[in-house]
Amino acid sequence: MQYLNEEEYNAKIGSWIEIVNEELERLIPKKDTPEKNIYEAMRYSIFAGGKRIRPVICLAVCEMLGGNQKDVLPFACAIEMIHTYSLIHDDLPAMDDDNYRRGRLTNHKVFGEATAILAGDALLNTAYEVMMEHALKTEGNMVQKLTAMHAIAEAAGTSGMIGGQVVDLESENKIIQKETLHYMHKCKTGALLKAPAVAAAILSGASEEQMSLIEKFGDKTGLAFQIRDDILDVEGDLASMGKQTGSDAKKLKSTYITIYGMEESKRLLNEVTTEADKCLQGFGASAEFLRTLIFKLCSRNN
Amino acid sequence: MQYLNEEEYNAKIGSWIEIVNEELERLIPKKDTPEKNIYEAMRYSIFAGGKRIRPVICLAVCEMLGGNQKDVLPFACAIEMIHTYSLIHDDLPAMDDDNYRRGRLTNHKVFGEATAILAGDALLNTAYEVMMEHALKTEGNMVQKLTAMHAIAEAAGTSGMIGGQVVDLESENKIIQKETLHYMHKCKTGALLKAPAVAAAILSGASEEQMSLIEKFGDKTGLAFQIRDDILDVEGDLASMGKQTGSDAKKLKSTYITIYGMEESKRLLNEVTTEADKCLQGFGASAEFLRTLIFKLCSRNN
Repeated sequence: MQYLNEEEYNAKIGSWIEIVNEELERLIPKKDTPEKNIYEAMRYSIFAGGKRIRPVICLAVCEMLGGNQKDVLPFACAIEMIHTYSLIHDDLPAMDDDNYRRGRLTNHKVFGEATAILAGDALLNTAYEVMMEHALKTEGNMVQKLTAMHAIAEAAGTSGMIGGQVVDLESENKIIQKETLHYMHKCKTGALLKAPAVAAAILSGASEEQMSLIEKFGDKTGLAFQIRDDILDVEGDLASMGKQTGSDAKKLKSTYITIYGMEESKRLLNEVTTEADKCLQGFGASAEFLRTLIFKLCSRNN
Repeated sequence: MQYLNEEEYNAKIGSWIEIVNEELERLIPKKDTPEKNIYEAMRYSIFAGGKRIRPVICLAVCEMLGGNQKDVLPFACAIEMIHTYSLIHDDLPAMDDDNYRRGRLTNHKVFGEATAILAGDALLNTAYEVMMEHALKTEGNMVQKLTAMHAIAEAAGTSGMIGGQVVDLESENKIIQKETLHYMHKCKTGALLKAPAVAAAILSGASEEQMSLIEKFGDKTGLAFQIRDDILDVEGDLASMGKQTGSDAKKLKSTYITIYGMEESKRLLNEVTTEADKCLQGFGASAEFLRTLIFKLCSRNN
C-alpha cells in the first residue's frame, strides 16, 4: 500500500487537527487581563477554520521519522501562528483590502485596523515565545530545537515569506518574468510550507540524506500548492461567471495561469506533485499519509 | 567618584553607539536582491537618528558585570530592531497617524503603508533571526542565550509591549485609573527598557542577587523614562504656545500629568530616579556610567 484510503486519511488528519487546535487553545487562551482584547483578536483569526496544513505537515514528518510528537507540536503551532499573522496583515486595507476570509469578516473588519495590526504582531511574537519557552522547559537537544526555530524564522523573514510579499507588492499591475514569479512564490508561499517539514525533520534527528529529501519535498509541495491555488482562482472566477471580487478586482497580479496558461500550469502541477511524491518513496509505509496529503492538496477544490 | 563627568560620559556613550550602528549596518545591509525595497525601508527607520538608549543600556550592564560585549551586542541590536518596528507600526494612519518622527517623514510616508507594515514585521522577525543565528554560531552557554532571548520576546509580546499598546488604544478619550496608567506604561514602554538590562545580566552570568537589583533598576528606569516623556510633552506644548500637533491633536491620552498633575509628576520622577540609582550603588565604580545615564535620561530635554 502506498496511499491511505479516504477513511484512514480522514481519521489521521482529523486527529492531528484536533491535537493542534487543543494546543493552540492552551497557547492562546481567553484572558481577563487589561489587554484581553488582543487575545480575542488573535483567537478570532487563529480559530477561523484554517485547514492547519502546515502543522499537519509538521506532525506527519515527525511521525514518518519516528520523532517525538510532544516536542514537535509547539513548533507546528508556532508556524500556524506565523501563517495566521501574515493573513491578518495581508487582508489590511493598505495591503489586499479584503473584507472576508473563509466566509467570515476579516480581523480588521471586526476589531478595527489598529487592533488587527497589533494582533498580527502579537501572533508573530507569540510564535517565538512559544518555541523558546518549550525549548527552555523541556529536556533534550537544545541545539536541535534552536536550529529548528531558526529555520522557521528564516522561512518567515526577509529571505522567505516577507521577501516574497515585497516582490509580490512590487509586481502588481506589471508583467513579470517567469524567474520573478518562481522566486516570489518560493518565498511567499513556499518557504512557510517547507518550514514545517524541515523543522520536524531537524527535531526528529533526520539523517543528512533524509534531510535533503525532505527539503526537496518541501520545495515541491510549496510550488504545487501555489500552482493549484492559481488554477483554483481562475476556475472559481469562471464558476462565478467571471465576476471578480475582493483584491482581484482591484489589482492585476501575475499568476502561473497568466504566465504559463492553464494547460501548461496543469501539466506543471502534475510534474511537481510527482516529484514531491518521489522524494517520499524511500521512506516506505511510514510516508503513506504524506503521499496521500500531497495528492489531496494538489487536487483540492478550496 | 560616583558619576562620570560630561566628557567621560560622552566618550563612552559615543563609542557604544558607534559599535551598535556598525553592527546594525552589518545585520541589515543594503542588498540588490528582488526584495531589496524591504531592506531600504528597514534601514530608513533603523538609521533614523535613534538615541540607541536600549542597546546602550544593554552594553553598559554587560560592562558593569564584566560580561563579553561580543556576546551581548546581537541582543542589543535585536532590541533596537524591536523598538524600531514598534515605532513604524505606531506611526501608521490606523494607529497614531504621524507624518513625522525625529524630524523626518515616517516610514509609511516614504515607502507607502503596505511596505511600512512589512518593514515593521521584517524588523521584528529579523530581531529573532539575529539572536538565534548568534546563539547557534558561537560557543558558550546556550541555555543562557535562550533565556535572554526569551526575556526579550516576553518583553516585546502580549504580556509586555504589545499588551501595553492595546491598553493604550483602549484608553484613548477615556479617563483611566492610576493602576491602568501604571500597567499600561510598565508594559508599553517599561518592558522594552527593562529587557536590555535583564538580557545583558543573564548573558553576563549575573548572580541571583545582582539579577534582582538589575530587574528593579530596569523597572524604575522604564517608569522614570515615561514620566519624563509625559513632562516633556506638556513642556513642549507650552513652549509652542499650546499648539498641539500630530496625534495629540486628535486623541485625548491619559498621562502622568493629566492624572497626577505636573508638580506631583516631577516629585515622582525624582523619587523613581533615586530608586533606580540606589539599585546600582552596590556595583561600585563599574556602575558609574549607568548611574550617569539615568540622571541624564531623567533630565533630558528631548
